[in-house]
Amino acid sequence: MQLILLSGGSGKRLWPLSNDARSKQFLQLLKSPDGTMESMVQRVVRQIREADITRNITIATNAKQRDVIENQLGENVGVVTEPERRDTFPAIALASEYLKMEKGCPDDEIVVVMPCDPYTEAGYFESIGKMVQAVEQNAAELVLMGIKPTYASPKYGYIVPDSPIHRFTDSPLNVSRFTEKPTIAEAEKLLKQNACWNGGVFAFRLGYMTAIAEKYVTAGCFKELQRKYSEFPKISFDYEVAEKANSVAMVPYNGAWKDLGTWNTLTEELPSNIIGNGILGNKCYNTHIINELGAPIFCDGLKDVVVSAGPDGILVCAKNTSETIKDYVDKLIDRPMYEERRWGTYQVLNSQDFGDGFKALTKTITLKKGKNISYQIHHHRSEVWTFVDGEGIFVLDGKMQRVRRGDVVNIPAEHFHAVKALTNLTFIEVQQGGPLVEDDIERFEFDWSRVKL
Amino acid sequence: MQLILLSGGSGKRLWPLSNDARSKQFLQLLKSPDGTMESMVQRVVRQIREADITRNITIATNAKQRDVIENQLGENVGVVTEPERRDTFPAIALASEYLKMEKGCPDDEIVVVMPCDPYTEAGYFESIGKMVQAVEQNAAELVLMGIKPTYASPKYGYIVPDSPIHRFTDSPLNVSRFTEKPTIAEAEKLLKQNACWNGGVFAFRLGYMTAIAEKYVTAGCFKELQRKYSEFPKISFDYEVAEKANSVAMVPYNGAWKDLGTWNTLTEELPSNIIGNGILGNKCYNTHIINELGAPIFCDGLKDVVVSAGPDGILVCAKNTSETIKDYVDKLIDRPMYEERRWGTYQVLNSQDFGDGFKALTKTITLKKGKNISYQIHHHRSEVWTFVDGEGIFVLDGKMQRVRRGDVVNIPAEHFHAVKALTNLTFIEVQQGGPLVEDDIERFEFDWSRVKL
Repeated sequence: MQLILLSGGSGKRLWPLSNDARSKQFLQLLKSPDGTMESMVQRVVRQIREADITRNITIATNAKQRDVIENQLGENVGVVTEPERRDTFPAIALASEYLKMEKGCPDDEIVVVMPCDPYTEAGYFESIGKMVQAVEQNAAELVLMGIKPTYASPKYGYIVPDSPIHRFTDSPLNVSRFTEKPTIAEAEKLLKQNACWNGGVFAFRLGYMTAIAEKYVTAGCFKELQRKYSEFPKISFDYEVAEKANSVAMVPYNGAWKDLGTWNTLTEELPSNIIGNGILGNKCYNTHIINELGAPIFCDGLKDVVVSAGPDGILVCAKNTSETIKDYVDKLIDRPMYEERRWGTYQVLNSQDFGDGFKALTKTITLKKGKNISYQIHHHRSEVWTFVDGEGIFVLDGKMQRVRRGDVVNIPAEHFHAVKALTNLTFIEVQQGGPLVEDDIERFEFDWSRVKL
Repeated sequence: MQLILLSGGSGKRLWPLSNDARSKQFLQLLKSPDGTMESMVQRVVRQIREADITRNITIATNAKQRDVIENQLGENVGVVTEPERRDTFPAIALASEYLKMEKGCPDDEIVVVMPCDPYTEAGYFESIGKMVQAVEQNAAELVLMGIKPTYASPKYGYIVPDSPIHRFTDSPLNVSRFTEKPTIAEAEKLLKQNACWNGGVFAFRLGYMTAIAEKYVTAGCFKELQRKYSEFPKISFDYEVAEKANSVAMVPYNGAWKDLGTWNTLTEELPSNIIGNGILGNKCYNTHIINELGAPIFCDGLKDVVVSAGPDGILVCAKNTSETIKDYVDKLIDRPMYEERRWGTYQVLNSQDFGDGFKALTKTITLKKGKNISYQIHHHRSEVWTFVDGEGIFVLDGKMQRVRRGDVVNIPAEHFHAVKALTNLTFIEVQQGGPLVEDDIERFEFDWSRVKL
């Protein structure tokens, strides 16, 4: 059995902590059972493993998230990257073809697709087990999870079972139809028909899905298919697959199910009212501080407010209006000030514009032991690196030198350079030039096996 | 005629923008008539000059504020620094002796003492003119300004005239007594007796004050007096001088008079709801953003809230509880993250602790054209300076070199160094070592006239 986790999202609603390179599912704000902090995606993967559903996890995502997934989940999960953002049908089609072409899974392999970030409890994963059983027993071509609604919400899609039953059950039910985002009045009627919310969890046999995918795109190998990705129609899995299926069954789930995608819902699940450096005065009620900066935050006289600060900015919002941030965030984002990469992390400390086309940008950069930054040149900037912790190998125009705490290297524009961390390695980078943009970078191959010290 | 401005205060109530080195009176948040931003002390000095009261201004302050005063007011004001913080009587005594011994003012010179930061209008300075007249006409030994009360406040000292009069006047009245911080019921009675608030503005002849000072401390020169400063009793001018005077008169002032010493009162006078990089969503009411950081602040769903962010931290407070910050600020202050110095400014960008007694601290430093940092050594830290704008002369162990944008210098611990700015000069400093404290510094003389390039 194979499990596909869909990881997308721009994370606008959790600004300033989330950005294009760090969507909400990667924020490490939840408490794991061992007391450390974990992200939503780390929590889901831990729950999957605890429920012993499968070890075969593949994450379908975009290229920008690849590094942070590798950092947070290690190398025990497969990663399929979409060449561009389209919709859920193309993403699931691509991941299914990956299972077939790259992992060699047979047509009758059972596949479960689920979002990477629902906040749920153990029963959710038991329901996934029942979905797998239902596919095994050929209950339907497609099996969905139905979330027992708690109110007549107009925001969700509904799955309507074919016969109104009067007791909530957890056995598979046949599905008669789908209704996307009804009015509240319609939703109330749907609830009387025992309709459930569509939680975006699907189970099917691999061959069923690849047959649909191959109606649009065929290829001799996975790399070729990936190149042809734009030929898939931009359409959701619900419209392209679920609504057209000959037989659909639903396994109901009646338990905690939350989307922690806004500050309002996320703060309800935080382990403490203060994360990071902060103080709440004694006239604060139901107020949360989430502070990723070094400097402290002080709050007083606030009720139902969330204060969140990170390198990208500071949010201060009444919890019930925190969703409005998504309408403003495009005005607030300049460039990411913090990124988690395959090799480690960087944070922008300061940016100075001298008005003559010349700028300076100061970063702190930490490489993880054994990782390296690629051999590269910049055309429009010089860099000075001051090493402040750890040891590494620095390369400038092919010449290698050992660097450690206290060393300084000067990298003029147009010079080839790279660094590899022998231990965790931290340095301060001062970039100078103009324009100073992340993509003023040209990467080259470098053979680290040549390194002999 | 001589004017003494008293500049003290720790600035706790306006955290995070104020700190020990930058009290509230130096925050440049008010709009001057020419459209630029000015601080409270710059506003008062501008008003004194506009009212043409005197050109002879002396500021009595502590050593920590000397640099910022010179930066904001230039060299056209005298500065007397107290060797330690005591109270208003010692401060005024010291400044008076300075006028006598250093400036050579005669005993019959008229002196006005006032706070450096009241937020008032032109009439206030007209009243000061009337106080000077009253002393000239020998109306009393000591003339005070009485602020017409707007309500029965228990927070102020009251000046009670000797006969209850029934119409508010601006002629000098004889004073019968003082009452410090009465109950509200007592204050209501005082208002019926035409009592005024004591605004801390005093006028007298210099010889009157120096005679009182010399009861406690005498010295052959001002430097000696300054060394003996701790011999002055820790007592306020009101108790030591005003309450013991044989004759006291009061000039009433009936006009705007505010202490912009809390975020609540300060925000009422700001030229805009947003100072710095910020956005207020359309569900904000009477909310202010004051942002000295580069990254943006977004607020929504807030009413009567002030959000203030600077290198030292972030405050989010209901305006009517903003005074509580003073009770928390000692827990929040670590070291100043921004300082205005005689030679320019610095800001701490980042501080890293590697857990082995070793730390790194990154600063951006800007020297003003023509200014220099003193010739110095550090015992426990090395420094790397990357110059990012301007030109200067850098000295290391007596050897001079010209530095400009793009240059990097490495300063090991125990090595002598200094820098002088030929134009405005900006560099990024990475300090490394342990402990990293501002006072790991030993200063030496350096003869800049030797510099020949």
